[in-house]
Amino acid sequence: MIRLFVPNDLSAESGIVLDKDQSHYLANVMRLKEGEAIALFNGRDGEWTASLQKVAKSGVAIHVHSQTRPQTPEPDLWLLAAPIKKDRVDLVAEKAAELGVSRLWPVFTRRTVMSRVNTERLAANMVEAAEQCERLTIPEMAEPAALDKVLAGWDAERPLLFLDESGAGQPIATALAGMAPGKLAVLVGPEGGFDNTERALLARLPFAVPISLGPRILRAETAAIAALSVVQALVGDWKLGPRAS
Amino acid sequence: MIRLFVPNDLSAESGIVLDKDQSHYLANVMRLKEGEAIALFNGRDGEWTASLQKVAKSGVAIHVHSQTRPQTPEPDLWLLAAPIKKDRVDLVAEKAAELGVSRLWPVFTRRTVMSRVNTERLAANMVEAAEQCERLTIPEMAEPAALDKVLAGWDAERPLLFLDESGAGQPIATALAGMAPGKLAVLVGPEGGFDNTERALLARLPFAVPISLGPRILRAETAAIAALSVVQALVGDWKLGPRAS
Repeated sequence: MIRLFVPNDLSAESGIVLDKDQSHYLANVMRLKEGEAIALFNGRDGEWTASLQKVAKSGVAIHVHSQTRPQTPEPDLWLLAAPIKKDRVDLVAEKAAELGVSRLWPVFTRRTVMSRVNTERLAANMVEAAEQCERLTIPEMAEPAALDKVLAGWDAERPLLFLDESGAGQPIATALAGMAPGKLAVLVGPEGGFDNTERALLARLPFAVPISLGPRILRAETAAIAALSVVQALVGDWKLGPRAS
Repeated sequence: MIRLFVPNDLSAESGIVLDKDQSHYLANVMRLKEGEAIALFNGRDGEWTASLQKVAKSGVAIHVHSQTRPQTPEPDLWLLAAPIKKDRVDLVAEKAAELGVSRLWPVFTRRTVMSRVNTERLAANMVEAAEQCERLTIPEMAEPAALDKVLAGWDAERPLLFLDESGAGQPIATALAGMAPGKLAVLVGPEGGFDNTERALLARLPFAVPISLGPRILRAETAAIAALSVVQALVGDWKLGPRAS
């Protein structure tokens, strides 16, 4: 069943009108007809069954029926990632959403080659992935910022696992072994990693934890996906098993 | 430094001639000149420094200097994956090589939509990824086969973790908690997962271990990458930390 994220409030037996893009998608791309069922979520009110009430030029009108899942807490897991090439950063955004990241934050480091990030496109990738993977939220797309500024304003209660290619990091499973589930962030540098200044800055920060992902040199997007997977498996919501459905 | 996988034996102060593709890559794409240094490995003799001796139409002649790393044991980790769309299966092959898979084995399941696999292209992707990630081997590209045939000939001493979307699987960290490092395989179905017949067959096999990757529905390629990452972190070579370099 098609599943859409909408900004509207969702409540039993109510009506909403979809925006132009979603109306076009349902009516023209997926060719749904009046009466056909979809699922909706908005990040606040859980998941709902709904159906197409009227397909009009001004937009598709939807009748919201009943809640199928209540809103439940999700992991408070941030991914900070240096911008990389288009297809690779798109992959990171898609996989971050699938892997339960609550905030994607592009950070500029000294070795970052890319000078800008298309946050609108990344946010759209994350919405699409969230719709498909059955999340009840979409990840927040944070404004890109310089790494040193981000670190200067950091909440010291959120551990920051950073991928240290210098070899000084602990194996990720060792670093996570003593951690309780809760606020957490993963920081991945660009291809080429962090420079010495950045590594020295991170080493002085009590909340920053250098980690290693083994003996092979991982591409930046692989490192991000791998670290998030291990975090979810060891201290995240994969410990609870699959969703009862 | 450019790093190439070659079929030749490698020994101190010896000479080899690269094939047409690699010669073209070095001479015309990367524009290396005579005397410039590269690194070589062949999966058997460790890693070697070498340099371009002669750039000729018939092929680039290479002088092999000395060994920089001895051949060391690598994880015996197989990935069995149902074929999926081109860009997604290419991604799986690339990431499998980065994540230390020793054999990639395409398996046809009942819900597999793709009817063939371009193993030549997948093998080339894996060689390229192995060259870049500093492995000393390339993964074996196994001949695609039907899942039931593969299972009928299975070595019972190799546990087979399979991603069970039905919800019956253990959290992956729980399933791995009691396992010793050694022979292991991960099996990922196509989009839509395994059907009931396959799940019933797997349930009867003592070496098959159903696992879960949490409450979200992961795309097939995400599930493969995530499961391999958790395996390497918990029972694979990521426990040893980064390579001393």
